[in-house]
Amino acid sequence: MTHSSRRLRLSAALGAAGLDAMLVTDLVNVRYLSGFTGSAGALLIYADERTPLLATDGRYRTQVAQQAPDLQAVIERAGPSHLVAHAAAAGARRVGFEGHVVTVDGFDALSKAADGTELVRASGMVEALREVKDAGEVALLRLACEAADAALRDLVDRGGLRPGRTEREVGRELEALMLDHGADAASFETIVATGANSAVPHHRPTDAVLAAGDFVKIDFGALVAGYHSDMTRTFVLGPAADWQAEIYQVVAAAQRAGREALHPGARLRDVDAAARAVIADAGYAETFSHGLGHGVGLRIHEAPGINAAADGTLLAGAVVTVEPGVYLADRGGVRIEDTLVVADTAGQAPELLTRFPKELTIL
Amino acid sequence: MTHSSRRLRLSAALGAAGLDAMLVTDLVNVRYLSGFTGSAGALLIYADERTPLLATDGRYRTQVAQQAPDLQAVIERAGPSHLVAHAAAAGARRVGFEGHVVTVDGFDALSKAADGTELVRASGMVEALREVKDAGEVALLRLACEAADAALRDLVDRGGLRPGRTEREVGRELEALMLDHGADAASFETIVATGANSAVPHHRPTDAVLAAGDFVKIDFGALVAGYHSDMTRTFVLGPAADWQAEIYQVVAAAQRAGREALHPGARLRDVDAAARAVIADAGYAETFSHGLGHGVGLRIHEAPGINAAADGTLLAGAVVTVEPGVYLADRGGVRIEDTLVVADTAGQAPELLTRFPKELTIL
Repeated sequence: MTHSSRRLRLSAALGAAGLDAMLVTDLVNVRYLSGFTGSAGALLIYADERTPLLATDGRYRTQVAQQAPDLQAVIERAGPSHLVAHAAAAGARRVGFEGHVVTVDGFDALSKAADGTELVRASGMVEALREVKDAGEVALLRLACEAADAALRDLVDRGGLRPGRTEREVGRELEALMLDHGADAASFETIVATGANSAVPHHRPTDAVLAAGDFVKIDFGALVAGYHSDMTRTFVLGPAADWQAEIYQVVAAAQRAGREALHPGARLRDVDAAARAVIADAGYAETFSHGLGHGVGLRIHEAPGINAAADGTLLAGAVVTVEPGVYLADRGGVRIEDTLVVADTAGQAPELLTRFPKELTIL
Repeated sequence: MTHSSRRLRLSAALGAAGLDAMLVTDLVNVRYLSGFTGSAGALLIYADERTPLLATDGRYRTQVAQQAPDLQAVIERAGPSHLVAHAAAAGARRVGFEGHVVTVDGFDALSKAADGTELVRASGMVEALREVKDAGEVALLRLACEAADAALRDLVDRGGLRPGRTEREVGRELEALMLDHGADAASFETIVATGANSAVPHHRPTDAVLAAGDFVKIDFGALVAGYHSDMTRTFVLGPAADWQAEIYQVVAAAQRAGREALHPGARLRDVDAAARAVIADAGYAETFSHGLGHGVGLRIHEAPGINAAADGTLLAGAVVTVEPGVYLADRGGVRIEDTLVVADTAGQAPELLTRFPKELTIL
């Protein structure tokens, strides 16, 4: 079972860190390790083979039994404190907690329950496991990307991108189409940016009207069973002006260079640099103002960050975006973004999950 | 200006608490006090008349200038630490922080920046201000409730609640109709629960099909400029069975009793008890398994909680829900919920914001 094998990996990491147990309170991490999707819950995982505990409140009594039948359910409002007390009573001397999630007030409550047991920071420990996706996760990410692909295909085929419509209308239609194709929801607020708005990297849709000659930049994704897809495509409404064709080709070449640099073991900053160099060589270095990409999974943004300041290397089985852009203020901008799975060996190409074509599409 | 008057109230509270300044990192509180809606930001408010600072990152340079022109903007990724250092340099000896929001790791970073300045817990201080809504807030809540009312009206008028449709289809249509009526989004995931599912207080829409004779319980709301509406109505698809008519009338009477108990100065638990007694008298006490209501505003659930364990009293100008229910497992359930503004004086009735009729509607 997938969740139990994830918990085994965490138990091994706990042992290696000299921890007897770990309290997991980040809800995404709870879901990752247990399958439980309620809006309140905490997990206690032991370094040894003792049964993990999942604490939640009375609303989720049935749900926790269905989603996590192999765990010991505890119905208790003050769940995290209860779990720490349980670990203390069970003789755990060092219990990890998520210092990036537990609040200062929350830590006080845990300390009262700890009864001499040492609470030790274990921030980011589960997130590190999540960086490499297992087969079940890749399958869900593939479904999420397919839903997004199919929705954009439908939108284009039915003429949804045409002068006279507003950004907001296009965004709403695209989000509805994703639901039609099996998404549970949009994975984040859809970006539809037309004309000069396309030069704003994270523009929110407005009542701005699509006009002939505009760039239309669409950054969106589908959510399937908790997994997020992320894709950007940029279109032109009518024949492309020379400047439009030029920056489109620069971004497309940079994006290809970024994808081709996605080897397991590659330094993250080198992947960023591979794409950035193409844009710099074309004279647009200043206009590419953000990182090249990020991990994607149970959160839309997760480890690793792929940017010029990133430490570390790309891991086999990580799922990441590659999304360079060139943005010319008050004129327009282009971003092209895919979600890909890093291959197991250096010679292998990454698996492309977002398959919508990337040629400049003239509508 | 609304935001500045809110900040003046906070400054007065800071002075009374012996604080020289406060670091606000909860994004909803930041929005409440500044108007800034970005996804990263922190505020420093002084107890005296010094200009507040708003720290955010480079993505929001333009937005912060537009939304909060009267504040001093600081473009800085490590915003909270920067603001604490600023307060320390300005001679602040005691700076409040939100202990229910700042994480253990985050507090370490603040402590390093504090340089001898004492960081003092001020958890819930802004939330306490938010409990009483000002005129601008009530106006937005009114708009949000109107959008929800109009959407439900449309849904019913066009025959959207009919046997053969799925819960999910109904939920999606209702959410789309709210957008048509000016909502920015749904204020939470719409609940559509048909037949036996209506006995689950917080059911998520499924592919279950509406059938003749079913209760259909719909709990939903609209989001307008950050403000949430919240309303529940329960319908019957066809003539009501005797048990359906009975529990509907019990819940309707309980809901009326709850609304009539909404006087400023009333003890919160007495408001809950007023509605609960009606249900208990009818023999259904066990089936009303949740609190009577909650505050609503920039969050869908905020202070005050109206339930049997609540301390404190209802404040004039608070906006709250009243939502009793009776749920008969495996048969069906009824909840009726309104959002109301508590009046200024005890003799005055609360303002009803959710105006969709509450008579048993047979479709």
